[in-house]
Amino acid sequence: MTQHTRSGSSERTDIDLALFGALGDLSRRKLFPALFHLDREGLLDEDCRILGLARQDISVDEFKAQIEGALKKYVKPDELVEVALTRFMNRLSFLSVDFKTVDGYAGVREWRETADHERPLVVYLAVGASLYGDICRYLQESGSLDEESRVVVEKPIGYDLESSKVINDAIGEVFPESRVYRIDHYLGKETVQNLIALRFANPLFGTQWNQNHISHVEVTVAEKVGIEGRWGYFDEAGQLRDMVQNHLLQLVCLIAMDPPANLDADAIRDEKVKVLKALKPFTDDMIGRDVVRGQYTAGTSDGQSAPGYLEEDDANVSSHTETFVAMKTEVANWRWAGVPFYLRTGKRMPEKLSQIIIHFRQQPHYIFDPDQRALAANKLIIRLQPDEGMRLEVLTKDSGLDKGMRLRRGPLQLDFNSAFPQVRIPDAYERLLLEVMKGQQYLFVRRDEVEHAWKWCDDLIAAWKDRNEPPRRYPAGSWGPVASIAMITQDGRSWYEDY
Amino acid sequence: MTQHTRSGSSERTDIDLALFGALGDLSRRKLFPALFHLDREGLLDEDCRILGLARQDISVDEFKAQIEGALKKYVKPDELVEVALTRFMNRLSFLSVDFKTVDGYAGVREWRETADHERPLVVYLAVGASLYGDICRYLQESGSLDEESRVVVEKPIGYDLESSKVINDAIGEVFPESRVYRIDHYLGKETVQNLIALRFANPLFGTQWNQNHISHVEVTVAEKVGIEGRWGYFDEAGQLRDMVQNHLLQLVCLIAMDPPANLDADAIRDEKVKVLKALKPFTDDMIGRDVVRGQYTAGTSDGQSAPGYLEEDDANVSSHTETFVAMKTEVANWRWAGVPFYLRTGKRMPEKLSQIIIHFRQQPHYIFDPDQRALAANKLIIRLQPDEGMRLEVLTKDSGLDKGMRLRRGPLQLDFNSAFPQVRIPDAYERLLLEVMKGQQYLFVRRDEVEHAWKWCDDLIAAWKDRNEPPRRYPAGSWGPVASIAMITQDGRSWYEDY
Repeated sequence: MTQHTRSGSSERTDIDLALFGALGDLSRRKLFPALFHLDREGLLDEDCRILGLARQDISVDEFKAQIEGALKKYVKPDELVEVALTRFMNRLSFLSVDFKTVDGYAGVREWRETADHERPLVVYLAVGASLYGDICRYLQESGSLDEESRVVVEKPIGYDLESSKVINDAIGEVFPESRVYRIDHYLGKETVQNLIALRFANPLFGTQWNQNHISHVEVTVAEKVGIEGRWGYFDEAGQLRDMVQNHLLQLVCLIAMDPPANLDADAIRDEKVKVLKALKPFTDDMIGRDVVRGQYTAGTSDGQSAPGYLEEDDANVSSHTETFVAMKTEVANWRWAGVPFYLRTGKRMPEKLSQIIIHFRQQPHYIFDPDQRALAANKLIIRLQPDEGMRLEVLTKDSGLDKGMRLRRGPLQLDFNSAFPQVRIPDAYERLLLEVMKGQQYLFVRRDEVEHAWKWCDDLIAAWKDRNEPPRRYPAGSWGPVASIAMITQDGRSWYEDY
Repeated sequence: MTQHTRSGSSERTDIDLALFGALGDLSRRKLFPALFHLDREGLLDEDCRILGLARQDISVDEFKAQIEGALKKYVKPDELVEVALTRFMNRLSFLSVDFKTVDGYAGVREWRETADHERPLVVYLAVGASLYGDICRYLQESGSLDEESRVVVEKPIGYDLESSKVINDAIGEVFPESRVYRIDHYLGKETVQNLIALRFANPLFGTQWNQNHISHVEVTVAEKVGIEGRWGYFDEAGQLRDMVQNHLLQLVCLIAMDPPANLDADAIRDEKVKVLKALKPFTDDMIGRDVVRGQYTAGTSDGQSAPGYLEEDDANVSSHTETFVAMKTEVANWRWAGVPFYLRTGKRMPEKLSQIIIHFRQQPHYIFDPDQRALAANKLIIRLQPDEGMRLEVLTKDSGLDKGMRLRRGPLQLDFNSAFPQVRIPDAYERLLLEVMKGQQYLFVRRDEVEHAWKWCDDLIAAWKDRNEPPRRYPAGSWGPVASIAMITQDGRSWYEDY
């Protein structure tokens, strides 16, 4: 891949897509709507075909009816243009398969053979990771693959380092790393990709992106929802595995990585891996001081009363699983030594909010009113949700006549929705599916990234196990345990609170 | 003055104001409206009194009627609250004086004696500079002044270095420098003062404000109007004396000065003088290459046909006076060496526009699409008029799905009017009058600033005289002579054009 292909102008998208788990939740809510949007915007090749695969024994027509129902539910009515919908539905085929036996896979090969010309196959595994190995192997055994076939897999890739190796090994027996696309849908978000443009195209930020100029970094990924009926699944994982190992660490990588020499997938991912390798391991001392595990108790959500984690359906009332984790960590390298990265993520927070805050250091000398000293620092706020946007906090002179040379925070604001109203912000899956079709890997997670992230989390989880402490409680609808506030306050700082 | 007084909370404003030239254009359009606004906002002390002085022999009532007429013309109707207007009119007295004889000045002393307690006198000279000396002397001779009396004078202070010295000497015989307030109304503009906050309260800008990070600076002060009936006056001066010697050089000072150790008036003005002293003198070579003089010919303004400079009323058709000047200069010191400052100002431009553009250097390495390389630099745009505001041009990722990692200019915008809609932006004269009353000199021009600015302009004017070249023509309603475009183009740059 050369730089130039980043412009996205030259790559072919006339692939065939085999989508395993085509009737599952992810497919209905995200993948088919994303594919439809790509089609509507003219980004699917005319010849591109989509084969849905599921265990259910239904007819093609029934399958299409279900997908049309999903589109009607998850695509805005004014975007569901009739002519586009018809064209899209014509791309669909369906195959009912028992994923666990090789027998049905011949159908994939046969479907490919009906194409009027050869084109790459993209296999999308929207199924549990335990099936990845079987599906890959049977696809190969059935002769459905060739030297260009790609596979897309979803997180979680395993439960820890060991289990992730087993899964990646199984995939790797069939697909070389250069054709494996591991999705972390955070990487498909516009604002996350914008971090790359922001850091490497803007000298104003690029030259200050280090420990000389940045005092600390905050990453908050707050979910408003609780467990949503997945108690058993979630309780096995916990918030660290569910959110930190993938999304938060990916954000840390993009914030902290050294500038890649070019935009090639491996140039970027080499730099990301360096960040993961440089994450400071937790000592027992640090775990006591810099990490807070939490579990929500009964409270409120959106003004309604909400049950505690241990009162949810199917709950095991003695669970110590964390639904919240806050931590202070450090990227121990030349660029970031001494700069705390404060991370927190939790369920049943007051609102759905993902944001990164870059806190720049204060000026060495201060000449304005002493009582305004605390104001005098710049912050860059990168908001991933609910509304993607960027805000730079600068200080201006307060314009009140009686204010003399008083300061005031005057945010320079860039809200993508309002700044560029003509542009629809695509869903993360649209971007990611398009990149897979183009054969661009830079927004996908490489195997060594997964493994280094697991390694770091495994160590922390092992230490938690040794300490055997219950998580701290926090009421549903709050910003987490009091201890998570104290954790940052002890450094003379506070979580950014201008939501 | 300590830092703390910058907050403006403690100073007295119970002064008496003697306004010479009280029936002149400046008084009607700017000074009385500004005083009224201060009063309306509760910033004039209850006891503050205003004595208008003019040559006209009219009654107090007639004077008040004229001032009320001016307020009705120049203050927005909804701001001209009846109760405030009554209170304000009650502050006014009037004295008809022949400024050039001492006789009438006793009236000032007598007026002061009618005050119920002692308070400082502020003398505002809204009259031609040729009268400054006489008025100051007669005020003193008549016993109207004391050790706290202040004097406010307007530009132009002289016609060149020598004449400015004569005027400043005459003022200085009566008022020490610490009680002389030389107005450059650009310093009263919110955005201009904001430069101080921007540079010294924001580490993001403060640490990059030098030749390592800034490639060049543009200052444009474009007037839409032509000569407005002042042909004879203007023709003696020309655009360099009329605009560059004061406004543009003051802006250059605030942009370029080293950080003052505190906000004391002299700390700031010491730094400004250093800039003026460091301005690179023009060699003959430089004048040929880096300076463009222009004079407008017939053209259009606001869609109407507009006469050329030599066709205006009272014009001397052989005049070589410049109505436009563009130049590339340099502040030859450690902070700015090698950074061009491109200045331009002219009459009969397409619009009224004053703005400063700070161009940051490009990144040392570039990894995005080669054809977008020219985009990849940050600019800070500080707009003084028509709408005061600030804009930071940053590059973001183009959010179009088919754009891959294409870049886009995404301005972070701070428009004072829309960002803080509850706050009226005060006119420059309101701010300046308030600072005079408080005895704060940091927004006023010190004598040595005036003199260094004249020195630099005098040298250029002398060189022009030697060269004896006619100014280049440009049609009214254009951005100046083609040569002013070529001047910056030869450096591979262009005047910023996103008006």
